[in-house]
Amino acid sequence: MNFEKFPAEVSIREVGPRDGLQNEDPVPTDDKVRLLNALSRTGVKRIEAVSFVHPKAIPQMADAAEVWARAEKNPDVRYSALVPNTKGAHRALEAGFTEIEVVVSASNTHNLRNVNRSTEDSLDDITGLISLLHDEGASAEVIISTAFGCPYEGDVPPERVASIVDRVVADGADRVSFGDTTGMSTPVRVARLLDLVKARHPDVPLLLHFHNTRGTALAGILTALDYGITEFDASVGGLGGCPYAPGATGNVATEEVVHMLQDMEIATGVNLPELIEVARLAQEIVGRELPSGVLRAGPRLPQISREKN
Amino acid sequence: MNFEKFPAEVSIREVGPRDGLQNEDPVPTDDKVRLLNALSRTGVKRIEAVSFVHPKAIPQMADAAEVWARAEKNPDVRYSALVPNTKGAHRALEAGFTEIEVVVSASNTHNLRNVNRSTEDSLDDITGLISLLHDEGASAEVIISTAFGCPYEGDVPPERVASIVDRVVADGADRVSFGDTTGMSTPVRVARLLDLVKARHPDVPLLLHFHNTRGTALAGILTALDYGITEFDASVGGLGGCPYAPGATGNVATEEVVHMLQDMEIATGVNLPELIEVARLAQEIVGRELPSGVLRAGPRLPQISREKN
Repeated sequence: MNFEKFPAEVSIREVGPRDGLQNEDPVPTDDKVRLLNALSRTGVKRIEAVSFVHPKAIPQMADAAEVWARAEKNPDVRYSALVPNTKGAHRALEAGFTEIEVVVSASNTHNLRNVNRSTEDSLDDITGLISLLHDEGASAEVIISTAFGCPYEGDVPPERVASIVDRVVADGADRVSFGDTTGMSTPVRVARLLDLVKARHPDVPLLLHFHNTRGTALAGILTALDYGITEFDASVGGLGGCPYAPGATGNVATEEVVHMLQDMEIATGVNLPELIEVARLAQEIVGRELPSGVLRAGPRLPQISREKN
Repeated sequence: MNFEKFPAEVSIREVGPRDGLQNEDPVPTDDKVRLLNALSRTGVKRIEAVSFVHPKAIPQMADAAEVWARAEKNPDVRYSALVPNTKGAHRALEAGFTEIEVVVSASNTHNLRNVNRSTEDSLDDITGLISLLHDEGASAEVIISTAFGCPYEGDVPPERVASIVDRVVADGADRVSFGDTTGMSTPVRVARLLDLVKARHPDVPLLLHFHNTRGTALAGILTALDYGITEFDASVGGLGGCPYAPGATGNVATEEVVHMLQDMEIATGVNLPELIEVARLAQEIVGRELPSGVLRAGPRLPQISREKN
């Protein structure tokens, strides 16, 4: 590892308001707006704000349009929304989003269980979705979930993930994101996938989305930094839990990512003490203790930051 | 990072029975013996079994001699004990230990608060302790705690830690261990310290002891592996907590370390499903949920190991 060659700057996308809250018990619209507004003031550069999904499938996001309409938009923040299909895409476009994410699972079984169609069929839908989004002047990011393993199928071959990248890049995807959906990544799996994809698509922006279910999230980020990756998802407080194991950790906590990067002198723009305050707010909103170590124990130099404040 | 050059094998020292239980509420002697015996059967190669400290200072270890006398000794396991001073060393030697650890804090303030003397004075004591242990045919490991930061002083310069290594190596220390006592390490700090120490003492065996208080433990281990380090401490279930922050994580969980290394095809000798069973036992013994992600969520391929069993 050559720390000297690590990127000087990293762009964190805060996914707590969407991916986080979507995996918690539903919370009131007011709280969602409060959380979004508070995050918009932390210095974070990107926020995944909401998803436009069917309210019966995901009641947590039923009020997406209202949340977004009421949220303060910080001109320094790039906001995005996730959509599952054409209907969702139209709702997101109507709401004014210009950065839109669509999702497909690398594991066929996972895709079938999630959206009742094969990975192949979802990719066909995505071809049309990318065109639609581009026609309306929005960018299209394809999130490939279960990119490091599937809870049903087990290991997912990196070649399979890379061939999905080939397909969506050919279809015009502006960015590709790899989801460690149930926390099955380990450093060597991150390296193998990035080796393949970077060789084939050196210029496609890649974003990594780690879960900390088995403690490996920051090790995965470290590995990705060594590959020059500069875009990572993270969730304030570790909001989102792990739907497969009650009490277990899901999304890596934004504070833990910022805290490590800060000590490595990699800029994120995020004000860590403010972010920790927002993690406390998130904890209050969902009414349970969140798993973020930096939230619980404070940053590594707590007494020193106390003195400074 | 060049995974091809990573060590093929890693020696984990299980510290749950000593460092773990020493930082939990006291548990009965029977439970300590059960835990030790169960760990001895997991395939782990080394166990820090007990410490011989003053029972008034650390009541958790008051029954160390009895625990050790009653424990089953697996001939394939190397057992060690920690001692704070000459009296403790004599007790450990009497009990039959031949691998003994002594400890000094790199941070002077931490050393003063812990043992009421300066780092310099502790180092003078250690000179005598190493001689005594060698005279009695035992090996002497020096643990340098707060090696990546101190909760009172903040950052600890790696040069200071390296100069302590110089001193104890000159005094005959057989091994040196770096303690991330309150979870203040980040990958770049691990690299800086190892750069310095490996350049000066390429042949001294180094052992790293990480805490996962702020999520960085496995990233630290990954960094150390890149430096060729092959010895790590870990605590079953993450036993040990964090005395500075209730509910926070202390020692990195042995299951998380074994789980990551296994997926990287680095041998540890440990049977992961058996180790997870012992983590459940540890949880039962201390009567609280332990922070290990692999204990809570299971290994990354749970359904597959279920099918195999």
